[in-house]
Amino acid sequence: MTQWIDVTTHGQGLYEITRTLTNLINENSVQEGLCTLFVCHTSCSLTIQENADPSAQADLERWLNRLVPENDALYTHTCEGPDDMPAHIKAALTATTLSIPIHQGRLVLGTWQGVFLWEHRHASHRRRAAVSIISE
Amino acid sequence: MTQWIDVTTHGQGLYEITRTLTNLINENSVQEGLCTLFVCHTSCSLTIQENADPSAQADLERWLNRLVPENDALYTHTCEGPDDMPAHIKAALTATTLSIPIHQGRLVLGTWQGVFLWEHRHASHRRRAAVSIISE
Amino acid sequence: MTQWIDVTTHGQGLYEITRTLTNLINENSVQEGLCTLFVCHTSCSLTIQENADPSAQADLERWLNRLVPENDALYTHTCEGPDDMPAHIKAALTATTLSIPIHQGRLVLGTWQGVFLWEHRHASHRRRAAVSIISE
Repeated sequence: MTQWIDVTTHGQGLYEITRTLTNLINENSVQEGLCTLFVCHTSCSLTIQENADPSAQADLERWLNRLVPENDALYTHTCEGPDDMPAHIKAALTATTLSIPIHQGRLVLGTWQGVFLWEHRHASHRRRAAVSIISE
Repeated sequence: MTQWIDVTTHGQGLYEITRTLTNLINENSVQEGLCTLFVCHTSCSLTIQENADPSAQADLERWLNRLVPENDALYTHTCEGPDDMPAHIKAALTATTLSIPIHQGRLVLGTWQGVFLWEHRHASHRRRAAVSIISE
Repeated sequence: MTQWIDVTTHGQGLYEITRTLTNLINENSVQEGLCTLFVCHTSCSLTIQENADPSAQADLERWLNRLVPENDALYTHTCEGPDDMPAHIKAALTATTLSIPIHQGRLVLGTWQGVFLWEHRHASHRRRAAVSIISE
């Protein structure tokens, strides 16, 4: 059964969902399989990044904001606000879906890997990701 | 059984394949599971983007063309034409594979999400994507 | 059962693992299914690229190094060396996970497609990727 993770975001940034995802896996009895996360939006995305030092996440966010600035004269799709078209571009450059193997009942995440929903818009949004868990 | 989606492209741009993919899912009896799309080329790619307003797709295409221009003095791989190396870079920055959960017999795509094959070359090409459908 | 691919890297670059992955598939009896590769690190990544002409891989590497240079004044996460923050950004722009359908006992890779672990750091590292193989 597909399950859902709901995240209320309050502006741009990385929102960690590792624990929420881990809890879903723990409630499930799959020992060997595959967990796939899919975010149902085109102005936020997913990423797996270092979760130990917040400065890495802050730099990542600021670097991408500089690469894809608002108010670029190139944009014609401006009717949804100055942060909308940059959000679509950022989503295209990062991930809409992530698949993580499950081994011995746990996600095979490395020591420093966290799973994040990456909000690219300024206003608060209610974001939804689908989680599929498949047994081998 | 792996199925195939064939797309004939006529120059750079986003070619929507949402309906083709949806039809494959409908023909299949899987109610809960996972659909994975994989494009068998290194000079085109896949993306999930807003499919309501064509201006978003046009901006995305123009933005990526500006980030990865042709005739960059850095390129040494030029034997296949000026659009070939930019195409490989664009493919590396976007997606070769996408996995979308199936819930109640349908892909869990959000309201504004469309699935696109993204052609990065100028000449016409016959492109092929493999579709794997797995039941939970 | 999740399997593992270990790669010892010696500096930045693309390390091809196509044959290692193909051998894992061959040892397995799955005829139709899905192979998912997941790299357990945040300073290296995965990509599918042309494996025929090494100049394409070299250009890809140099292009990304120019886009994400070391010693950028923007970085505050510098405690792990000048190549660490660029490595995290490069990982976010490329792939941590790849899913490739299996058809008739083989990965559906196109003629020119190779699977690579992409090392973004200078020092030697022992890198690990998990491989999940699921039968349809």
